[in-house]
Amino acid sequence: MAPSNTSIKLVRNIPSGTPTLDDFRIESIETPTKDLLKPNQVLVRTLYLSCDPYFRGRLTGTRDSYVASFAPGKPIEGLGVGIVEASTSSKFNEGDLVTGGSFLWETRFVLSESEITKVPSNTGISPANYLGVLGMPSFTAYVGLVSLCSPKAGETILVSAASGAVGQMVVQLAKARGLRVIGAAGSDDKVDFVKSLGADVVFNYKTCGSLQETVKKAAPQGIDIYFDNVGGELLDVALSSMRFNGRIAACGMISQYNATPETAYRIKNLVNIVPKKVSIFGFIVTDYYGKPDYKNFIDEVSASLQQGKVQYKLDEVAGLENAPQALLDLFEGKNFGKRVVKVTDTNQRL
Amino acid sequence: MAPSNTSIKLVRNIPSGTPTLDDFRIESIETPTKDLLKPNQVLVRTLYLSCDPYFRGRLTGTRDSYVASFAPGKPIEGLGVGIVEASTSSKFNEGDLVTGGSFLWETRFVLSESEITKVPSNTGISPANYLGVLGMPSFTAYVGLVSLCSPKAGETILVSAASGAVGQMVVQLAKARGLRVIGAAGSDDKVDFVKSLGADVVFNYKTCGSLQETVKKAAPQGIDIYFDNVGGELLDVALSSMRFNGRIAACGMISQYNATPETAYRIKNLVNIVPKKVSIFGFIVTDYYGKPDYKNFIDEVSASLQQGKVQYKLDEVAGLENAPQALLDLFEGKNFGKRVVKVTDTNQRL
Repeated sequence: MAPSNTSIKLVRNIPSGTPTLDDFRIESIETPTKDLLKPNQVLVRTLYLSCDPYFRGRLTGTRDSYVASFAPGKPIEGLGVGIVEASTSSKFNEGDLVTGGSFLWETRFVLSESEITKVPSNTGISPANYLGVLGMPSFTAYVGLVSLCSPKAGETILVSAASGAVGQMVVQLAKARGLRVIGAAGSDDKVDFVKSLGADVVFNYKTCGSLQETVKKAAPQGIDIYFDNVGGELLDVALSSMRFNGRIAACGMISQYNATPETAYRIKNLVNIVPKKVSIFGFIVTDYYGKPDYKNFIDEVSASLQQGKVQYKLDEVAGLENAPQALLDLFEGKNFGKRVVKVTDTNQRL
Repeated sequence: MAPSNTSIKLVRNIPSGTPTLDDFRIESIETPTKDLLKPNQVLVRTLYLSCDPYFRGRLTGTRDSYVASFAPGKPIEGLGVGIVEASTSSKFNEGDLVTGGSFLWETRFVLSESEITKVPSNTGISPANYLGVLGMPSFTAYVGLVSLCSPKAGETILVSAASGAVGQMVVQLAKARGLRVIGAAGSDDKVDFVKSLGADVVFNYKTCGSLQETVKKAAPQGIDIYFDNVGGELLDVALSSMRFNGRIAACGMISQYNATPETAYRIKNLVNIVPKKVSIFGFIVTDYYGKPDYKNFIDEVSASLQQGKVQYKLDEVAGLENAPQALLDLFEGKNFGKRVVKVTDTNQRL
């Protein structure tokens, strides 16, 4: 009897508004077996899957984005890390630890060799870290801050969602470069965590009162760099607070992803970018994997890890069946750090 | 008896709303004479003065900008071209044609040698051109389009205020680089003029109906570059129309300069810059005068002029006493091309 396999499928696209559990279906499906593999394919058992805010765009059903939308009746897919259980590829062997961006939200599935990358195993660190401190969100932090905003010692940076998957690395990369770091987070626990990373001022944006006054008090001289993960009102406040030659990394605008035309926040301070000579950079990290920035990132963060100079908070939810809720939580800020779903144990054999 | 001298002074600052003629005062003042010059100064007779949209910011009285605000009781000042009538500087002689950014709105005034630059005289072209085709607005077009947005042949550009001082040069620089050019202008005459510059599609934004539909029809595949001179609704439409890796030159937002907090347009499509990977560049041309971009601009446009390949529309108003109205007209789009005020004739001697 084939071991059990679970698949998380999308029921319907959600063009706007807030997704719910009813939009996902948990199915028991057949487990792929080795004899089904075509040439240059691998059978992967999932260890960890990544829940990311950009999934909201993939739920809409629109084609007008940088990644394909999820399709009704098909499994969710995204970043993951897993173990090769069978291979017809000369590049991968049984037992290899691999990562990639086309992991299905299934216990086991088949990918072609071009869709995965081998990562070091037996290093003593959890495979989940390949979705975290050495993964896509950290590299996103590096690209937005270092590659695009060219931070200089003594400058002031404001980081939104500063305890999140990307934000926590922005805070640490900025402190390592001698910047004054102001963080915004959505709970007192998150605030304490961001302070523990070395941020100079951190505020709870839900309880601080006026965002404008809070930012003004935290940065009386204004902001040189704003690393935006949230959009909406905080972006508007940042726009009004930028110093001459300021830079904004437009990494994400999660506060707006579930907005309808009626509830979308409308920006009033964009006009400030002309007299203040502010640049705003929309970017997608996948454009930078083949560039020197990637090696620079791996080198810097690996060294920091070995020296114990970098912290990274994972928010681990156990069980593939809990993955839909784990994703929905993101849109309400219920995660605390980079959210991953643990699907199976490294040493598990069925 | 000293020849007559006229000065246009500001009566009061105008923090928001629409300035009126009552905010300016025309005074007869004493004419500076050669014996008043300190070392390294020049006495300049004004030939032409430049009226520019950025003056709106200088009328507010706020210090929080890249150029000083005009002060009540003091003359307006800005770009101009004039003739040296007396000099204690070894760098300038009587009769030299000079330009600079600190020209007072007066018939004659004194500047230090560091505030002016000599330009070629006796070339047969009107000195007004140093405020136009070879002047600051053209260089602004060059910096925004070429230096910041890196245009590539085959791309599509939308240019707002396409018949204006900056826009008309953007259109021509873009066509010279093989782009498809869509222009927006505010009257049918302006539309015809922009077409005559070679733009592929030009629409009258006041009469075209839905801006969204108009831009969609003009650029069904979307826009690679938006050169923004106006802000407001057209910027919002452009934001919704950007293609992947689009670039926006945020040169000006004249539709918003007289806005009050109640009437300011609120942008709803900024969120699109993340999935579309759009960069937005606020910039001020004065940062680029010392850079290689300036020489590249002068070389390119001088050559185009000599080859008769560039057109540039000047909108000349005669008489310093008419300068306040000439400026106010800009805020209502009544100018047609780069607006300059003719103060005295080149050969005039008093």
